[in-house]
Amino acid sequence: VVGFGVFSRDGDEPRVGFRWGDGVLDLAAAGLGAAFESSSLNPFLALGRASWEDVTARARELVAAGAELIPVSEVAARLPLEVGDYVDFYSSLEHATNVGRMFRPDREPLLPNWRHLPVGYHGRAGTLAVSGTPVVRPSGQAVTAGDDGPSFGPSRRLDVELELGFVVGAPSERGRPVSASAFREHVFGVVLLNDWSARDIQAWEYQPLGPFLGKSFATSISAWVTPLALLEGSFVPPRDQDPEPLPYLRVAGDWALDVELEVALQGTVVSRTNARHLYWTMPQQLAHATSNGASIRTGDIFATGTISGAERGSEGSLLELTWNGSEPLVLDDGSERTFLEDGDEVVLRGRAGDLELGEVRGTVLPALPL
Amino acid sequence: VVGFGVFSRDGDEPRVGFRWGDGVLDLAAAGLGAAFESSSLNPFLALGRASWEDVTARARELVAAGAELIPVSEVAARLPLEVGDYVDFYSSLEHATNVGRMFRPDREPLLPNWRHLPVGYHGRAGTLAVSGTPVVRPSGQAVTAGDDGPSFGPSRRLDVELELGFVVGAPSERGRPVSASAFREHVFGVVLLNDWSARDIQAWEYQPLGPFLGKSFATSISAWVTPLALLEGSFVPPRDQDPEPLPYLRVAGDWALDVELEVALQGTVVSRTNARHLYWTMPQQLAHATSNGASIRTGDIFATGTISGAERGSEGSLLELTWNGSEPLVLDDGSERTFLEDGDEVVLRGRAGDLELGEVRGTVLPALPL
Repeated sequence: VVGFGVFSRDGDEPRVGFRWGDGVLDLAAAGLGAAFESSSLNPFLALGRASWEDVTARARELVAAGAELIPVSEVAARLPLEVGDYVDFYSSLEHATNVGRMFRPDREPLLPNWRHLPVGYHGRAGTLAVSGTPVVRPSGQAVTAGDDGPSFGPSRRLDVELELGFVVGAPSERGRPVSASAFREHVFGVVLLNDWSARDIQAWEYQPLGPFLGKSFATSISAWVTPLALLEGSFVPPRDQDPEPLPYLRVAGDWALDVELEVALQGTVVSRTNARHLYWTMPQQLAHATSNGASIRTGDIFATGTISGAERGSEGSLLELTWNGSEPLVLDDGSERTFLEDGDEVVLRGRAGDLELGEVRGTVLPALPL
Repeated sequence: VVGFGVFSRDGDEPRVGFRWGDGVLDLAAAGLGAAFESSSLNPFLALGRASWEDVTARARELVAAGAELIPVSEVAARLPLEVGDYVDFYSSLEHATNVGRMFRPDREPLLPNWRHLPVGYHGRAGTLAVSGTPVVRPSGQAVTAGDDGPSFGPSRRLDVELELGFVVGAPSERGRPVSASAFREHVFGVVLLNDWSARDIQAWEYQPLGPFLGKSFATSISAWVTPLALLEGSFVPPRDQDPEPLPYLRVAGDWALDVELEVALQGTVVSRTNARHLYWTMPQQLAHATSNGASIRTGDIFATGTISGAERGSEGSLLELTWNGSEPLVLDDGSERTFLEDGDEVVLRGRAGDLELGEVRGTVLPALPL
């Protein structure tokens, strides 16, 4: 695993570290500056691209020169960011098509806007949690088949969403769009992200203003943010877009990210896919999100939306993997799953070439008594 | 105007003040504590209900005893909060019905969930702005009638939304719902809020994940947060709810807020209404938003959604006042309006009995060149 994060050891004050494999370099102790004596990456992220690249290069040199690393087993990783806003896109063609088929079976699965813009919405920044944080099964309103109206109770259709998120370092000015070509000036790096979803709550609430309580109880991110500076070898040509996007969404260069991804449920890998399958690229997402003049802040997170491939077994949610619960998965221990059960542990993993991203791990705890 | 806010004078460091009429009491200078030497209300809000009520009472006593107030004309008011998350509800029956009729003319105006839960979604916290901040007309994708597909350009249907918002003081714990009856333990006060909306952008983008760029360019709030402690005389019985809400949404007591509201456009009052018309109350909104275990933080804002009454001229948006642009308003200067023009100034005002809330003022600036 390679990335920047925040850790504490023996109950000490949290500090910023550079993770390399099974060790963590204490960046302030290594002489890299006061920005690293912090309980979040934000002071470092606010320094801008030149600093990110300089610090990343120096951290790698120190590691290569044999600097002392703290064993990762001796540290507690924390949420690495003071999160500004959290936006979630819907950028996988296969995911959007699958969901459309299941939720709106009587209509075209892709809505008319989908191929013209990266559809997205705001999620709850205050409930982002670091990998390892348990997730209490949410309760909420849902309609059970055959019932006249909604009832309130623990979600019966708790799901995961396999996503990547990009983390904003340098802010922008109110009223000034950020062009797709300015992506690297503003974006520091990426994390894996699990956008936990209660499908029964979501299905009842989401019209007309979109997902709310079906998502807002928890969103987990990896403890280590992998800088773009270390991912340069993993950018590959994106897939074709038809129709051609409007000019503000056009961007030259290879902007798909070749990251192999997997979802493990109770130790069984239930999905394998790749982020390069996404239809909309991260620079397009950023350009779109700011095209109306909305500003961005240090610590904002923009997530891709569920990443699903075209083949069975490459979908990034149980909703799709089990086709709305109708085709249960069989785990290695012989048990079956449609949606998550109490006690289930989910791990998301990602690999860009030789470089492993920070995992996202979470266990489902039972709902609170009503 | 009565409320707590953040001001600076002569370019000095910002401080917390208590506004009373045309004066501002400097709370730190008056000996009320270090929490008021701050660029936001958050340190004060984090102290909890007993402190809010104590400070409010002491501030009123000091004012009554003739303490020196700074003329409001000598201070610059700032955004009073470090905003956590911003949630916007849709709690006016009349507004939701009007929008449903216009946006989905072929279907029942109210969707099946509307009377069972306060529909809401997350907005962009990073683009909240204090009253007086100009708003640049946003550009975005929209479909012009008769065109095959979308085009990108300045919004032609820029609108206002007249809302109240409540401000969270005391945070809650992850996984623990906040009951409706705990509302006063967590909520400090209210602000007026203008949820600027680009209707053409919104109409094209909003399905299936809800409003995004049609709203995220700017949301304006008053500079002065009026504490609940000063609004006790303005809580009145809410309107009937049919069907009876599920148990977690039931709350005893008078929770509608009798606040007279108006929207002025270029000096002409174009709408007069009252917040007591809202269908869902603020404690119900908070209970719903946390019913899935989502935590709240100091500085979170929950807005009511557009407040519209039943009569013509009591709607809280131009969309409704002009019935989707088909019935232009005539201003006092004889000019007509459907949606906002460049240079237009909008002012939202609210009054609870003798007590005036902080206004929300904003002027539309032309779109940036593309």
